[in-house]
Amino acid sequence: MSESKPLQVGIIGMGTVGTGVARILVQHVDRIRRRVGRDVQLKRATVRDLDKPRDVELPPGVLTDDIDAVIDDPDIDVAVQLIGGTDPARDIMKRLLAAGKHVVTANKALLCEFGDELFEFARKHDRTIAFEAAVAGGIPIIATVGQSMSANQITSIEAILNGTSNYILTEMLKRGSAYSDVLGDAQRLGYAEADPAMDVDGTDAAQKLVILAQLAFGTKVPLDRFPRSGIDQLELTDLTCAAELNYVVKLLATARLVHGELEMHVQPTLVKCDRLIAKTDGPFNMIALEGDAVGKTWLSGPGAGQMATASAVVADVVDLAVGRAQVTFSRLDLWNDHPPVPLCEEDKIAHRFYLRFNVEDRPHVFADIADILGRHDISLASIIQHESSEQQPTSNGASIVPVVVMTHYTAQGKLRAAEAELSQLTSLHPPIVRMPVSD
Amino acid sequence: MSESKPLQVGIIGMGTVGTGVARILVQHVDRIRRRVGRDVQLKRATVRDLDKPRDVELPPGVLTDDIDAVIDDPDIDVAVQLIGGTDPARDIMKRLLAAGKHVVTANKALLCEFGDELFEFARKHDRTIAFEAAVAGGIPIIATVGQSMSANQITSIEAILNGTSNYILTEMLKRGSAYSDVLGDAQRLGYAEADPAMDVDGTDAAQKLVILAQLAFGTKVPLDRFPRSGIDQLELTDLTCAAELNYVVKLLATARLVHGELEMHVQPTLVKCDRLIAKTDGPFNMIALEGDAVGKTWLSGPGAGQMATASAVVADVVDLAVGRAQVTFSRLDLWNDHPPVPLCEEDKIAHRFYLRFNVEDRPHVFADIADILGRHDISLASIIQHESSEQQPTSNGASIVPVVVMTHYTAQGKLRAAEAELSQLTSLHPPIVRMPVSD
Repeated sequence: MSESKPLQVGIIGMGTVGTGVARILVQHVDRIRRRVGRDVQLKRATVRDLDKPRDVELPPGVLTDDIDAVIDDPDIDVAVQLIGGTDPARDIMKRLLAAGKHVVTANKALLCEFGDELFEFARKHDRTIAFEAAVAGGIPIIATVGQSMSANQITSIEAILNGTSNYILTEMLKRGSAYSDVLGDAQRLGYAEADPAMDVDGTDAAQKLVILAQLAFGTKVPLDRFPRSGIDQLELTDLTCAAELNYVVKLLATARLVHGELEMHVQPTLVKCDRLIAKTDGPFNMIALEGDAVGKTWLSGPGAGQMATASAVVADVVDLAVGRAQVTFSRLDLWNDHPPVPLCEEDKIAHRFYLRFNVEDRPHVFADIADILGRHDISLASIIQHESSEQQPTSNGASIVPVVVMTHYTAQGKLRAAEAELSQLTSLHPPIVRMPVSD
Repeated sequence: MSESKPLQVGIIGMGTVGTGVARILVQHVDRIRRRVGRDVQLKRATVRDLDKPRDVELPPGVLTDDIDAVIDDPDIDVAVQLIGGTDPARDIMKRLLAAGKHVVTANKALLCEFGDELFEFARKHDRTIAFEAAVAGGIPIIATVGQSMSANQITSIEAILNGTSNYILTEMLKRGSAYSDVLGDAQRLGYAEADPAMDVDGTDAAQKLVILAQLAFGTKVPLDRFPRSGIDQLELTDLTCAAELNYVVKLLATARLVHGELEMHVQPTLVKCDRLIAKTDGPFNMIALEGDAVGKTWLSGPGAGQMATASAVVADVVDLAVGRAQVTFSRLDLWNDHPPVPLCEEDKIAHRFYLRFNVEDRPHVFADIADILGRHDISLASIIQHESSEQQPTSNGASIVPVVVMTHYTAQGKLRAAEAELSQLTSLHPPIVRMPVSD
């Protein structure tokens, strides 16, 4: 790209983030010019409906409802592709790359599923895909893993990557409210989508974790190869029991090297309440990174939102304009220290665990539980059983009380075997709630 | 630099950090090659005493006690300059640049005082100075401000930039110990230097803040142009009184835009205890950044230490090897949105304030204080006066008790004027302790 002529940008998809990107490019022309060394011009922005009112004023001729007006325009150097999902986003990205455009994207679902294919396609066409906005919005985690930690082998990533879930967990505990009540409020306040399924079931966090793990460990782990669960089944009582034990429940995305294997999962996890990750409340994201040279670092900030995500997108546009993103992209496949890291078998993953049983309040019940756990070599670190204020009598007249135990370190497989036996106890009523503890 | 021949590195100064850098370059040759795309070779490392034992094994011929062996070696592309202070570091850096070497440095004192001169000198010789390690060790704050936030005007930096001070403050409160006791332990444990003056008096944090402010606001503010104080005069009682009010005292380095002026200071500051910055304990650093697009982001990690600092240095070497650092450096002078931002006059800076008075325990004393504050238009948000267990009688028989007040927002100048009047009260014994509150 010549240094003198303006860099021309096309935006595909003028939703919330696209509008934010357009706003920065149009309202801060001088700022961007100063940082790039030449003009950056928004040439085209595609919308579905040209007549819909917009909350950013664009020069005449910029808006178009024809994607080909971006793809076929030889003057456009950089395409900001902000349509979600994988279809038609995947094809559009290939057409943009084949037409000679660098692409900036915030689409984590697309990169999670087709990142390797699209990266290879981009390399074949000597183009760059920049994707800082795809993970953790305004937090520069892609730059940190992909550039700043280059002296390190990353050894551990523990992260809050879904702001909606974190907001709901924070509010449940603060207000003492059930999941469904808080979700409704979150939707009214704009912290949760009308269809929040991907956010609250762990899919969104898992997609972002796949991208981070690919960068940090050079290994593509498909979504269905590692366990994920969300917050949609969580009960308030587990948040309050955890708090009593000095833990906070967070939807934690974890990828770490353990004895040369990659342990990966997304699940509600107990985090000791004095850790920074436990202190990350509301709609914020937080990533705790560990590298073999740097030790631990933490990054936190807005994981979503119009201008925070637009900030990351425009930083990528600037990086492309000055040529930095091209260098970074060309190095990403060189990132890993090892041949593909093998994935740790789920049953071998060891944690301390939080368990909640609903037991009938009568003699020897806890002894039966402790006996089964003991025979599976699972030892207990602490136990909570309160006198229940809401004892529900069962058909045989005994009331049901919750019993919470914290185990010592144990492999998940042992616990699963024990749970299979426990589920046979008639004095124990399903479900058994199990969450790992992050120390 | 050719892509095929190895990048040759010289290290000037094999102290703690230099040894860490050498260790990464020598022990992780494959890793660095993979990330750079060619070999990175440690050609020379200068030491004062060739016979001193080293805790890293280097190939024969690498160690030298002659700095000119690096400066005059035309094969060395990148010099890692790790000698502290400004003299002879300043001259050595110029000689390295003039000899055609890019320079990586961790020397904040040098960049704080002579950064503009050295940057200009480097540009004249078409060379790059990379300095991620100069501020906050392993935290990628230079890359974040200099690259990732390029869509933003940074509006606020609030930071814990001195790990020694933060460790001492954390331990004082945790153990209920006096400053001097904790300092002694910190020195034994290696968290404080034998001569800790620059760390505990705020100078080190102020030097780092000058560098960050230059990047974020394009304004060079000399050290003597903004107020700084350290933790060396702090008494435990102020930490415990702050805790009672739900605040934590941190040595906070602040640079922010207020009505188009730059407010800058380094001082012990009360931070509400639920903020991430208040939760940053021990020898860690934390930077809270605010940008006009991204909103708030936080970065935390080790601010010093051998391998954390070496991690930042080697990342700069990698960035130089791939050509990214050169692009970044060429853009740094284009960073600011404005003509040089004027500095906010000290007396105009407004905060809420924490004040502690030592007063004689007799009638009307507090009324006198409140009267003077009120006449200077300073209103009080809260007041703590405890029955003192250690009342010391004065010469006139009255005992002395501490009184703590928190003011509402007020300009520092008003408070200073009020303090001048207060100091005339015979019932009030010096000193008056004053700390700002960060909300």
